[in-house]
Order: sequence, then structure tokens, then C-alpha cells
Amino acid sequence: MVEPLDERQQECWRAYIESSWALQTHLEEDLRARTGLSMSDYHVLVVLSEAPSRRLRMGELAGFMVFSPSRVTYQITSMVKRGLVRRESCPGDRRGQEAVLTDEGMAALVAAAPLHLATVRDSLMDDLDDAEVAVLARVFTRLGTRLRPAGTGARRHPCATDRPLRRDPHLA
Amino acid sequence: MVEPLDERQQECWRAYIESSWALQTHLEEDLRARTGLSMSDYHVLVVLSEAPSRRLRMGELAGFMVFSPSRVTYQITSMVKRGLVRRESCPGDRRGQEAVLTDEGMAALVAAAPLHLATVRDSLMDDLDDAEVAVLARVFTRLGTRLRPAGTGARRHPCATDRPLRRDPHLA
Repeated sequence: MVEPLDERQQECWRAYIESSWALQTHLEEDLRARTGLSMSDYHVLVVLSEAPSRRLRMGELAGFMVFSPSRVTYQITSMVKRGLVRRESCPGDRRGQEAVLTDEGMAALVAAAPLHLATVRDSLMDDLDDAEVAVLARVFTRLGTRLRPAGTGARRHPCATDRPLRRDPHLA
Repeated sequence: MVEPLDERQQECWRAYIESSWALQTHLEEDLRARTGLSMSDYHVLVVLSEAPSRRLRMGELAGFMVFSPSRVTYQITSMVKRGLVRRESCPGDRRGQEAVLTDEGMAALVAAAPLHLATVRDSLMDDLDDAEVAVLARVFTRLGTRLRPAGTGARRHPCATDRPLRRDPHLA
């Protein structure tokens, strides 16, 4: 028998899960309206922009996303059609395939990043004081560590608002 | 020009968004493996179980979910096929339709709720101390209020782990 959540825990859980779900919907709708990109598109662009030579094997890419491998294939096919990514055979392994960020894909990311950042600030970050920032960082870092499968220490689920801003001089 | 997040804010945002995304994926996979229900199924069951006479107009149901109305229609059609919900004409309004929780749907919720609660405890809630519970409740209640469209004060996005446990004597 699992003990029910007490009143304060219930309040916490419902506020967290309901607001987080609403925030993800808001971020998705906002990004799509302003840039035509989905959050999944955006995450693939961020991950590839941070990879060496802006390219990753399909399996590596799947490891960076929350997606299943079949979902990654579907996602990349859609992005290839729109010119954001191209597929190439892996050097030295003809059966393997890599996803490579195109110049058009990089330009789309550079254009989208500040708009996404503004939404992230407006919806959550600008509302938090220093103590709240510290508690959220601590709690959700622990959560990420618990949820990360053993042996995949390098695996992340990137939603980096900041990375292209820091890495790409055009965004500085 | 939007100011980039500082280092502590970046750490907070990435930990929060990446871990929350991973948690939602984990909750979804876990629920599906243990009960055959998706999180969307579960939420519809919870919302209907809390409604008067366990029934809601399709439009009202959409207001409780993060879904678009078209997505709600698709979701309910799938649940009708599985016997969890039935569709009925609204009394006094033949053009309107209501979704009604079936006994089978209520039984599925009663069976799933304690399993879902255990996962919620294991993955997040049992890890939080009292001060963290208070901060998360405060931050995400504010977030929910900001994201809620004006004039929809009663609208919620229910993910109630606790409700069926408290309301249904079979779960007490």
C-alpha cells in the first residue's frame, strides 16, 4: 500500500506537474508561431550546433533526446525535407548515417534562440528570486541524476536556450 | 535585445526543463507498461471521475486539458473504442455531446492510481524535504496563474494522483 501524499505534497505535485505541462505547451505554441519550428526541431538544432563539426550519428542524436530511435528517424526526415538538416553516410561505415546541420538550419537556430529566450524569461525565469533559482537547480539536478539510466552519464536532454547565444558570435 | 541568462539561471533552467521532460517521459512509459493507459488517458479518467455525475461536455473537458479541442475529440474516440468512456447527447441540446465515464473506465482509474502514485513518490516527491516542497508549490502556483488565460479561473490541468485515492472508498 502506497501512502497518499499529504496536503502540502499534493499541492506541490499538482502545481508542479500542471504548470510544467502548461509551460511546455506554451513554449511549443509560442516557438511555432514566431519561427515555424517545433520544440523538437529546436532541440535537434541545438544538439547538432553543439556537436563537433555540427554532425552526429543517428544513434548518438537519439541519446541526446528524450525520443525513441524511431521517433528520431521521423523527426530527422521532416527536418531534411525543410532543409534544416541533411543525412550523410558515416565516414568509414557505409551502413551508418549521420545527421548534419545545414547552414539554413544554423540560421534558423540563430534567429529562433533570442525569441525562445525571451519567452523563457517572461514565463518563468524573471519571476524567480535567487533563493528559488538555487532550490530549483538543486531539486531538478537531483531528479535528472535519478532518471538518467545508469552508464549514460554523458547523456543529456538538451533544451539549451543559452548555448547558441554563448557559442555563436552572431548571437553575442 | 534580450539579456542572456546568467550562469546560475542557466543551470536552473536547463536542470528544470530537461529533468521535467525526462520525468514526463518516465511517467508515461511507466504508466503504459503497468496499466496500458497513456498519461492522456489517465488525465481524462481523473477529470471525468471528479465531474458531477462523472460526465462533461466535450468543450468543458477540453478546458480541463492542455489539449486542443481536435485533440480531445481524437482522444475520446480512442477511449470510447476501449470502453473507458462513452459519448452521449447533452440533455436538452441534441447537437452537443458529453463524455461519460463508464464503470470500466472508473475501474481502470482505481487500478492505476496507486501505481501512478508510487511512481510519483519514487521519482520526485519522496526526495523533497519540507522546505523544497514549499518552494516548488509557491513557484509553480505562480507559474500556473501566469499561464492561465484571463477569465478561466476555474480551468485546471489535472494530473491528480491523489484525488481518486481520497474520493473513492475502494482506494482508501
